[in-house]
Amino acid sequence: MRALNVAAPWGLDAIKIVELPDPKPGPGEVLVRMKAASLNYRDWLMVNGMYGRSSATTTDVITPFSDGCGVVEAIGEGVTRFKPGDRVATLFFQGWISGPPTVEKAVTSLGFPIPGAGAELQTFSQEGLSKVPDFLTDQEVATLPCAALTAWRALFEDASLQPGDTVVLQGTGGVSIFGLQFAHAAGYRTLITSSSDEKLERAKALGADHVVNYKATPAWSKPVKAATGGKGADFIMEVGGGGTIQESMKAIRIGGHISIIGVVAGAGEPFNPAGLIGNAAKLQGVFVGSRDMFEAMCRAIELHQIRPVVDKVFAWTDAKAAFSAMAAGEHFGKIVLEF
Amino acid sequence: MRALNVAAPWGLDAIKIVELPDPKPGPGEVLVRMKAASLNYRDWLMVNGMYGRSSATTTDVITPFSDGCGVVEAIGEGVTRFKPGDRVATLFFQGWISGPPTVEKAVTSLGFPIPGAGAELQTFSQEGLSKVPDFLTDQEVATLPCAALTAWRALFEDASLQPGDTVVLQGTGGVSIFGLQFAHAAGYRTLITSSSDEKLERAKALGADHVVNYKATPAWSKPVKAATGGKGADFIMEVGGGGTIQESMKAIRIGGHISIIGVVAGAGEPFNPAGLIGNAAKLQGVFVGSRDMFEAMCRAIELHQIRPVVDKVFAWTDAKAAFSAMAAGEHFGKIVLEF
Amino acid sequence: MRALNVAAPWGLDAIKIVELPDPKPGPGEVLVRMKAASLNYRDWLMVNGMYGRSSATTTDVITPFSDGCGVVEAIGEGVTRFKPGDRVATLFFQGWISGPPTVEKAVTSLGFPIPGAGAELQTFSQEGLSKVPDFLTDQEVATLPCAALTAWRALFEDASLQPGDTVVLQGTGGVSIFGLQFAHAAGYRTLITSSSDEKLERAKALGADHVVNYKATPAWSKPVKAATGGKGADFIMEVGGGGTIQESMKAIRIGGHISIIGVVAGAGEPFNPAGLIGNAAKLQGVFVGSRDMFEAMCRAIELHQIRPVVDKVFAWTDAKAAFSAMAAGEHFGKIVLEF
Amino acid sequence: MRALNVAAPWGLDAIKIVELPDPKPGPGEVLVRMKAASLNYRDWLMVNGMYGRSSATTTDVITPFSDGCGVVEAIGEGVTRFKPGDRVATLFFQGWISGPPTVEKAVTSLGFPIPGAGAELQTFSQEGLSKVPDFLTDQEVATLPCAALTAWRALFEDASLQPGDTVVLQGTGGVSIFGLQFAHAAGYRTLITSSSDEKLERAKALGADHVVNYKATPAWSKPVKAATGGKGADFIMEVGGGGTIQESMKAIRIGGHISIIGVVAGAGEPFNPAGLIGNAAKLQGVFVGSRDMFEAMCRAIELHQIRPVVDKVFAWTDAKAAFSAMAAGEHFGKIVLEF
Repeated sequence: MRALNVAAPWGLDAIKIVELPDPKPGPGEVLVRMKAASLNYRDWLMVNGMYGRSSATTTDVITPFSDGCGVVEAIGEGVTRFKPGDRVATLFFQGWISGPPTVEKAVTSLGFPIPGAGAELQTFSQEGLSKVPDFLTDQEVATLPCAALTAWRALFEDASLQPGDTVVLQGTGGVSIFGLQFAHAAGYRTLITSSSDEKLERAKALGADHVVNYKATPAWSKPVKAATGGKGADFIMEVGGGGTIQESMKAIRIGGHISIIGVVAGAGEPFNPAGLIGNAAKLQGVFVGSRDMFEAMCRAIELHQIRPVVDKVFAWTDAKAAFSAMAAGEHFGKIVLEF
Repeated sequence: MRALNVAAPWGLDAIKIVELPDPKPGPGEVLVRMKAASLNYRDWLMVNGMYGRSSATTTDVITPFSDGCGVVEAIGEGVTRFKPGDRVATLFFQGWISGPPTVEKAVTSLGFPIPGAGAELQTFSQEGLSKVPDFLTDQEVATLPCAALTAWRALFEDASLQPGDTVVLQGTGGVSIFGLQFAHAAGYRTLITSSSDEKLERAKALGADHVVNYKATPAWSKPVKAATGGKGADFIMEVGGGGTIQESMKAIRIGGHISIIGVVAGAGEPFNPAGLIGNAAKLQGVFVGSRDMFEAMCRAIELHQIRPVVDKVFAWTDAKAAFSAMAAGEHFGKIVLEF
Repeated sequence: MRALNVAAPWGLDAIKIVELPDPKPGPGEVLVRMKAASLNYRDWLMVNGMYGRSSATTTDVITPFSDGCGVVEAIGEGVTRFKPGDRVATLFFQGWISGPPTVEKAVTSLGFPIPGAGAELQTFSQEGLSKVPDFLTDQEVATLPCAALTAWRALFEDASLQPGDTVVLQGTGGVSIFGLQFAHAAGYRTLITSSSDEKLERAKALGADHVVNYKATPAWSKPVKAATGGKGADFIMEVGGGGTIQESMKAIRIGGHISIIGVVAGAGEPFNPAGLIGNAAKLQGVFVGSRDMFEAMCRAIELHQIRPVVDKVFAWTDAKAAFSAMAAGEHFGKIVLEF
Repeated sequence: MRALNVAAPWGLDAIKIVELPDPKPGPGEVLVRMKAASLNYRDWLMVNGMYGRSSATTTDVITPFSDGCGVVEAIGEGVTRFKPGDRVATLFFQGWISGPPTVEKAVTSLGFPIPGAGAELQTFSQEGLSKVPDFLTDQEVATLPCAALTAWRALFEDASLQPGDTVVLQGTGGVSIFGLQFAHAAGYRTLITSSSDEKLERAKALGADHVVNYKATPAWSKPVKAATGGKGADFIMEVGGGGTIQESMKAIRIGGHISIIGVVAGAGEPFNPAGLIGNAAKLQGVFVGSRDMFEAMCRAIELHQIRPVVDKVFAWTDAKAAFSAMAAGEHFGKIVLEF
């Protein structure tokens, strides 16, 4: 079988397709034939040697991708959760099953340090996979483990909203689009920002109640205030980038909740936390979620027949092109690799 | 102006339409010209001398109805929340503005001890009224203060559910139908029971994902289990009556939430609370809610353009016929009086 | 090695001490030399064939006791949580590590169906044991897995109290005494009932702020109201028995929380759940807790140097006498077996 | 009667003691003879024209001090909560009775815009005062409205901790010392920092389990980690100042809670919120609390006989000296004015 590996000196050119012996599932393990994988910004950092690498002299070889969909090919001794033929998604945290996060759970992330979905055949702990709704395609399933679950956790685990509350999404990347779809399914009022009117039209079709082109209206907190009778948003999914946190602080209502999702647009931007005092707002960092959360998310996806937005598809052997497309930042939803 | 009063010896025949001088709003008060009122089972108890009456020898005269819609006719000194011409709903608790319930807040219920919406003109504290969504008719607004808010609080204040979770509604009375509409708007999976296939069809049109005719299937916990992969419902809105609590105990999942809403079908039915231990379930009593909750509910009603189900309309002077219709128990949604 | 087994026709006389080959730890398993075990009412039901036995014709042999303390004698392949010599407690649910309860987690209870601590040597999954505070004796540790954790979960997982809130404990059995000690450590105002003035004096020494002899004052809700300025208790740990639920319903404040702990005094007592409506109270069933909760409890026990109350100690081979002492109902705290 | 007023050009020298006619309580108002007031950093800002002043050309005259204790001298029409002779505390927010904060509630803060406790006689809405525990002195009561309630809300309203959890307090100012006393009463493990060993000794006497001199150990996150077995603190009360937020981010556990209390030591310090992602921590801004919270706090203070720490007492006519003492930053607990 073939796998996608990357190692020092890192970079897109360091991505190699290598031939390896077929792996065999050990006790409690499941062998999966991958059908699709999806890209996250974290994979881009990983491939470029910027994630979890304490030293340039490391000899680590990384098989990236936390997000995959495949079919069970074989099971090891003691496996009870799956049988050959089952379709599964990989879970971002292979060891975070239930309950709140801990250090022990957090170090089991897929891609790094645990080899990820970038291989034709891969073994996983049976605890690190979940069955998925039938109505989704393999490519759609492959978008769920990281981006979708991050949006789900931010909205439904960390926050405590009611139908009619107002949720703000920033941009049209994977997490934001899932956030839009989930918030809409939950009956929240949704407002999304983008620099493209065309993308905003597509967002409307996915349930956006209000749209703001932040190029035309850089002070997007003003339309947020207008949409909420002057009160401000109940929830903002903050994905980082130029000045967004400053504007989020203006747009949030007293006692509101800002999810700090990730630093898509670079290193984030310093701000003075004293600004939180005046409106008693909350900043909550988020990093994906547990298997329990994943399964709850899948129940909702099935009930609402939510279709993940797959923007572009590449052959898995052409990951370099896929990463280049992601870096261009022009996508709407997720970029997927097919096997 | 005329008012609907009732006093000892109580009963539907004791309901009188009386002529009274027009009231004038005192400091902080608002004079409202009523347009519609709706009936709750509590009003029926009240009219029959079975609510809040410690003695048959009382000389109290009751003006019933917690639920009304009207237009502000005049305002007293210091009123800032309203101006003449504003359309308002009456609030069930005139003194429960915010926060958790207390004895002090709970004794301010409308109808009794505070004279209710059963009058052409009535004065209220400005704190005891709220503005309402424009798109609703007066009759629809008049259904909200008690039944709708009870369903809202049970689902969104007391419980903690996520999209895709399963909610069970019992029967097609006012609270259950609002519960269905709200649960559907929140993205929950809904299952409703009724003894009438025709009513179940109407419920489907309002968003019911599953329907069960409890005459055909008295053990309705079985279809609940089937609909949830054997797990049981996450939430049940228990409205009382023959054996429902026993069946609810079978239908609820481990750690699930049962709202005890009211005793529509009589005095309820004893059960052994030890049954809660095995599944770590929760029984939570509910009685209407605060103004904050009412306003949150109205925001959701407006966003989702939820139309309350008005089953039958009577002239307010014909309240006796309206109460008889309610006692017959054949309604689907709410019974309304118009002024 | 010897083990304590019981089988049909059940009953205290059916308890046998049997000689068995020494068990060996399999992969992921730990062999423990038991030092102490404690009795719970559940063990009494088990021994008498009244727990988890669907048929009198069962051929099951039960090794009872969920609650044990021992020392690791040997570890199986892949065990990382323990090494020989570690002192451990057994966990009530061998498979409930984290997060909310599920059916899958709930069927892993120790004693039945999983063989329990009633043996000189016993093997356990490494996931089903926890290390314990050094300052406790083996006998004290052996009281923690069921009774202490039940009280802990009821107070700190299910409820949401603040220092100064009022907690009512019923009687001086194991759960209630732990409840008293934990509630006191958390800064709650505590009130405990008993039929014995002498036991009430001992309870005062453990932190009871108020005591009520329910023989002298059967309407113990009155002193609860008096102690709370008429408001009622914020939390009641309801352990069942003659009429307690009725009195708890009078003693609880509006919006208060009643934990339904177990049915120590028989089969519980029917009550009408409609009684919950008037005060919007909550009944919450409880059955022990997860390993996460156990470890949180141990942190608190260590910080506060809480010493479990061991009432009586018997040789483990004299379990019949220990069960008889428990059935007599005169204990204050826990009954322990030593190996 | 005399009042302490301050106006443009602001500054300590602009504080004037003026003679004014005795105020009379209007409808719903209470006239209070002040006995004591306490200083908060907010009063210092106010006196220096740096709080709530949009323009240097304002003609506003401020009577500062949100925090007072006094005795009811007379009551206006319709007052039911108090009678002459009652001892009361002033509430920071005169219009925040219950429930979550809103803009409407937040604009009712005492001192500015509502004239504060800096006067021999002052009128207040009856809703803006609360009775207080008998065992406290007037000076002790005067410390509660702002600093104590801020610490209370941060610990018990915003956070969700259990006995045995670890709480970090920064420095020995008013909020931190109340935080220490409350956290200790709630059974939390407490760690406090200071630059003075002598103050740390005093903190131990108030219940500090661990103390860290941050002059000797600027990287105080290390002893926090050591005290928690490497896990990190569950809760940090962040009061601002040089680099504390950076160190708090290192000291907090995964999923922990950092309260952003106020900016005692200047303008706070920018930090990159992306740092929250890795440990899924939460930053929660806090500004005092509601009357419901104040009354809950007083119940706990009474049960635990918690004595606020009054560091220095000045005559109210000597407020300038009191402010100078506060600005020196050498206090331990609160600075109080007596009338």
